Amino acid sequence: MPDDAPATKRAATEAYGASIVEYSPQENTREKISEELEKKHGYILIPPYDHVDIVAGQGTAALELFEEINSLDLLLVPCGGGGLLSGSAIAAKGVNPACRVMGVEPELADDATRSFHSGTLQTVHNPPTIADGTRTPSLGEHVTFPLVLKYVDDMKTVPETAIIEAVKFLFYRMKLVVEPSGALGLAALLSGVVRPQGRVGVILSGGNIDGDTMRKILAS
Amino acid sequence: MPDDAPATKRAATEAYGASIVEYSPQENTREKISEELEKKHGYILIPPYDHVDIVAGQGTAALELFEEINSLDLLLVPCGGGGLLSGSAIAAKGVNPACRVMGVEPELADDATRSFHSGTLQTVHNPPTIADGTRTPSLGEHVTFPLVLKYVDDMKTVPETAIIEAVKFLFYRMKLVVEPSGALGLAALLSGVVRPQGRVGVILSGGNIDGDTMRKILAS
Repeated sequence: MPDDAPATKRAATEAYGASIVEYSPQENTREKISEELEKKHGYILIPPYDHVDIVAGQGTAALELFEEINSLDLLLVPCGGGGLLSGSAIAAKGVNPACRVMGVEPELADDATRSFHSGTLQTVHNPPTIADGTRTPSLGEHVTFPLVLKYVDDMKTVPETAIIEAVKFLFYRMKLVVEPSGALGLAALLSGVVRPQGRVGVILSGGNIDGDTMRKILAS
Repeated sequence: MPDDAPATKRAATEAYGASIVEYSPQENTREKISEELEKKHGYILIPPYDHVDIVAGQGTAALELFEEINSLDLLLVPCGGGGLLSGSAIAAKGVNPACRVMGVEPELADDATRSFHSGTLQTVHNPPTIADGTRTPSLGEHVTFPLVLKYVDDMKTVPETAIIEAVKFLFYRMKLVVEPSGALGLAALLSGVVRPQGRVGVILSGGNIDGDTMRKILAS
């Protein structure tokens, strides 16, 4: 964990029984630290998105949604590294081939949208979006980028204000704590970036929002 | 709605399609206003707790819990006017007579606990607890007080700090927005006021928390 991680995230992680290894993002990278830990302790690395097992696992949310509601005309999915998006798209197309699948990312972190439309992997460097789960530099070169090209129908971007409104809507109306990255699909609907036609499903994913961020959102 | 109701509550109520009638709590009472509206428009009053239909309806949460998990040794239920508590107790005893049912209220609004132990209806006047759903003056004289005496096994009170910790736990760990009154059962567990033995169920009820209150709780 970076040494500037929020105290609440540290406390929750420790309470779940994990041992935290701290590092300074100024002096080191996660990749180097995790490689050292693998060598020293024989640990197995769980990659964040660019791996077929991660894609398969993340696709189960969409699969469960289809099992519950049978068919959809459109499925909206948040996009950071593309694991959730490509897994959801594979699940949707497998169960309900007519369902369109659309990935949503912040305007400020539009690398996947540019990659999708150009067919060449585009990157972004530490974008200043509130949706911190999408600050990944790009889709995964080996797994998620090819899958997004193959299975996803379209990509859209949403402004920061729409993301904040979606988090507030989920808080006040659905009584759910969803982090900004996880609310991207709903942001596309509420802001009118996507006009719903037929039955629309929205994947909400992730509730790792720290108290300071939620306080700012509720005050806005 | 009182003329000092939070703007977010007004906005949500209007968005659900309701017409809001404003009144000044300094100049009038809800009872008088609603009586006038009933006479003028032929409206039907939905009482907040002291009515058998309300008790029956609120008891369905406990009934659904038992349908899902079969049996419990203890059920913890928030207590304000006693509608949810008496309904939950009737449901629990009907399905699983060995399950103990315990009501929980704030130390600062301990009227139901005093009523339960004395056998005489006790009141409290506008108690300064953060659990605003329990600021009711007393259990319902006609329906909920007799039912609480008959079906509830015990009553406990929790300090304000325990209520705040429970709301934070639900936010950070369970990703749920629960208002302070709705988190009383969990507060009794987390604070050690109730020591869990066997299988314990907790009724969480209500997510009507305004942004300012949640911001204060997250900052504490």
